[in-house]
Amino acid sequence: MIAEIIAAGSEMLTPFRQDTNSLYLTAGLNDLGVQVAFKTIVGDNFDHLTGAARIAISRADIVIFSGGLGPTEDDLTREAAAAALGIEVHPDPAILTALYKRFAARQMIMPPNNAKQADVLDGATLLENKHGSAPGQYLDTTVDSHRKIIILLPGPPKELKPLFLEQVKPRLAASLPPRHLARRQLRMSLIPESQVDARTSPIYKKFPDVETTILAGHAEIQLHFVCAKPTLEEAQARVDELSEKIEAEMEDAIFSSNGDSLEEVVLLNLGIRHLTLASAESCTGGLLAQRLTAIPGSSRYFLGGAVVYSDALKTTFADVPATMVNNLGPVSLEVAHALAEGIRARTGASLGIAITGIAGPTPGTGPDAAKPIGLVYIALADGNQTQVKELQITGDRERVRYWSSQHALELIRHHLL
Amino acid sequence: MIAEIIAAGSEMLTPFRQDTNSLYLTAGLNDLGVQVAFKTIVGDNFDHLTGAARIAISRADIVIFSGGLGPTEDDLTREAAAAALGIEVHPDPAILTALYKRFAARQMIMPPNNAKQADVLDGATLLENKHGSAPGQYLDTTVDSHRKIIILLPGPPKELKPLFLEQVKPRLAASLPPRHLARRQLRMSLIPESQVDARTSPIYKKFPDVETTILAGHAEIQLHFVCAKPTLEEAQARVDELSEKIEAEMEDAIFSSNGDSLEEVVLLNLGIRHLTLASAESCTGGLLAQRLTAIPGSSRYFLGGAVVYSDALKTTFADVPATMVNNLGPVSLEVAHALAEGIRARTGASLGIAITGIAGPTPGTGPDAAKPIGLVYIALADGNQTQVKELQITGDRERVRYWSSQHALELIRHHLL
Repeated sequence: MIAEIIAAGSEMLTPFRQDTNSLYLTAGLNDLGVQVAFKTIVGDNFDHLTGAARIAISRADIVIFSGGLGPTEDDLTREAAAAALGIEVHPDPAILTALYKRFAARQMIMPPNNAKQADVLDGATLLENKHGSAPGQYLDTTVDSHRKIIILLPGPPKELKPLFLEQVKPRLAASLPPRHLARRQLRMSLIPESQVDARTSPIYKKFPDVETTILAGHAEIQLHFVCAKPTLEEAQARVDELSEKIEAEMEDAIFSSNGDSLEEVVLLNLGIRHLTLASAESCTGGLLAQRLTAIPGSSRYFLGGAVVYSDALKTTFADVPATMVNNLGPVSLEVAHALAEGIRARTGASLGIAITGIAGPTPGTGPDAAKPIGLVYIALADGNQTQVKELQITGDRERVRYWSSQHALELIRHHLL
Repeated sequence: MIAEIIAAGSEMLTPFRQDTNSLYLTAGLNDLGVQVAFKTIVGDNFDHLTGAARIAISRADIVIFSGGLGPTEDDLTREAAAAALGIEVHPDPAILTALYKRFAARQMIMPPNNAKQADVLDGATLLENKHGSAPGQYLDTTVDSHRKIIILLPGPPKELKPLFLEQVKPRLAASLPPRHLARRQLRMSLIPESQVDARTSPIYKKFPDVETTILAGHAEIQLHFVCAKPTLEEAQARVDELSEKIEAEMEDAIFSSNGDSLEEVVLLNLGIRHLTLASAESCTGGLLAQRLTAIPGSSRYFLGGAVVYSDALKTTFADVPATMVNNLGPVSLEVAHALAEGIRARTGASLGIAITGIAGPTPGTGPDAAKPIGLVYIALADGNQTQVKELQITGDRERVRYWSSQHALELIRHHLL
């Protein structure tokens, strides 16, 4: 069984808007063992939409439309699907009554166009939309002696997602052979994708029944495993076996095997050890603190800290000697060292983390003028010892800053291991 | 003339990857007066790709393929386009020689598959790819007595974008009636889209020759104007006239009419007035500082500040009396007031900005326990007076934090007007 997803809406044919529903729908269809073979994006044009619908019905077994179910003249999905199938629509009395009641409750007269929302493809089941006025539709039919399942869903993701999850997925599952899926996700950071692939592919290639996907981005590599078997136990056993072998190979490069983000892992490990953290950030300017405080409950382990962006604030908030900053430059091993110890002492945190570097695009000044863009020092002080890492990060300002914050989180995580 | 964009690649039919090239291509085509009527996403499957190509050639005047030009078995765009057009491919001797030379230079024997990259559609012009090995192709032909322009582009955006800009756009422009485009962008924040539309649509509807697009997202509304005329002067005059009328209506709700971000506008206005800024952030945990320091050159006007996430740090870094925090709660008008004045005094900045609030999802504790999630106080101290805004922001933790940082930037901007 292959599927096609048709996203209807002229806004998705502009440079500004993109179909995103299809990613969600694809994940759900894949769960059921259905592959998406085509996606079509088409504007609010009856001929274009009808043509696209006709093509989709001829080449796919399952066709899911998203969008075009509203009350305006531009909402043409019902009419186009009916025309492509060569069937009629009829108004559903219950939906029609509900629409009239809704307007009457607001003491308004319903514009005639709104009645369109009650139109149902002949033979289709209505799918109640709890988050909007346009119901979905589900039609299991035969076209030229082939079974075709046609599904109409509203465009807004807040309406489409629950409708698909609660009403479409169970119906499709009942029409398809049973499958049990197990999943696992391993997350690593600061390691090149090519290296992850070189070290893990000899392992995962021995598990052809487990689908392995490598995703890279945001200074992170994710390995996704999915396995389908007649029973959940069999699927889980295969995914777990592969996962353990890869964890043995990659060791503590893996920061999470349960979906947790690096920030969550760091905060969790601080909690396990009853430790607190404070930060002093120069080139990242609050990015590390922002990432940690984005996690609910972070206030138990992260106290806060200082954004020591100017030279003077390195002294004001972390007691770095002004002469050190002036003589060695703010981007130096010594200043990073002093920042980490200073912020720890000032805040009373168990651990002090410091980041200072040249994010670019312009170089540093004074003693930093000759230092390369991308040079970053990260220091971690725990009261007994203070370690400093010197890094040379490639890329633009945004990348240097993000990777710096990622290195800082990894330094803390490794310290807590 | 209508266009169809076909993105070839099985990875774009997974839940993880999306076609993004089409947004870039659409902007370029729109510049030339060409509308994109269809987008098709299809996997690395010869029959599927050939079928999609045939459909596109029948329904569009310009068909742009992205992806599938590499040397692997999965790279099928050349063959599929030829099959759909009913023509042959032939190897280009110059490209073939260049491929052999490249491998020879590395002392490697070229795998036979790589020769595919030299295959050219009969009649097509090769488009040199300076950033990769697969050249693009441009074919201006006739199919069933209709003129069709078929364009093959490599998938990686770093190859596709320069190729389109430097070699495809000029060729298409030469085939189409001349157009001169003027553009303008107005940016507003913290104002509902419906209000912007209600106030501006009576104005922009009087300019039917200017295409107006309203985009909402990230606590911001953007109005984009595009106008095409036989001369650039005429187009610019219309866009400027509309823009001035809308600026007169929306007044200082508009923070930028030249594309600058809110962060850039705030920093620019600090610079004009020779002022500096420092921040004390509680619930936003460094987000405001991170946004300002993301802008190159921000260090001239933004000194840094403190992430006063724990109660104690509000005293340590901004001299807020501990009794005030304990008695009134950290989320209070008084604490915001004291934070702004304290951070200003400590850092020596001209302006001190402070944010304290309940971002959720869990409520505050102590005196804050009864206060609603989304309650945020923002204070700005300039040495003469300190103003405090009380806000009730709806939505989840991420939204409360982002909107808080946006309100803080707007408070500073309005103060500087």
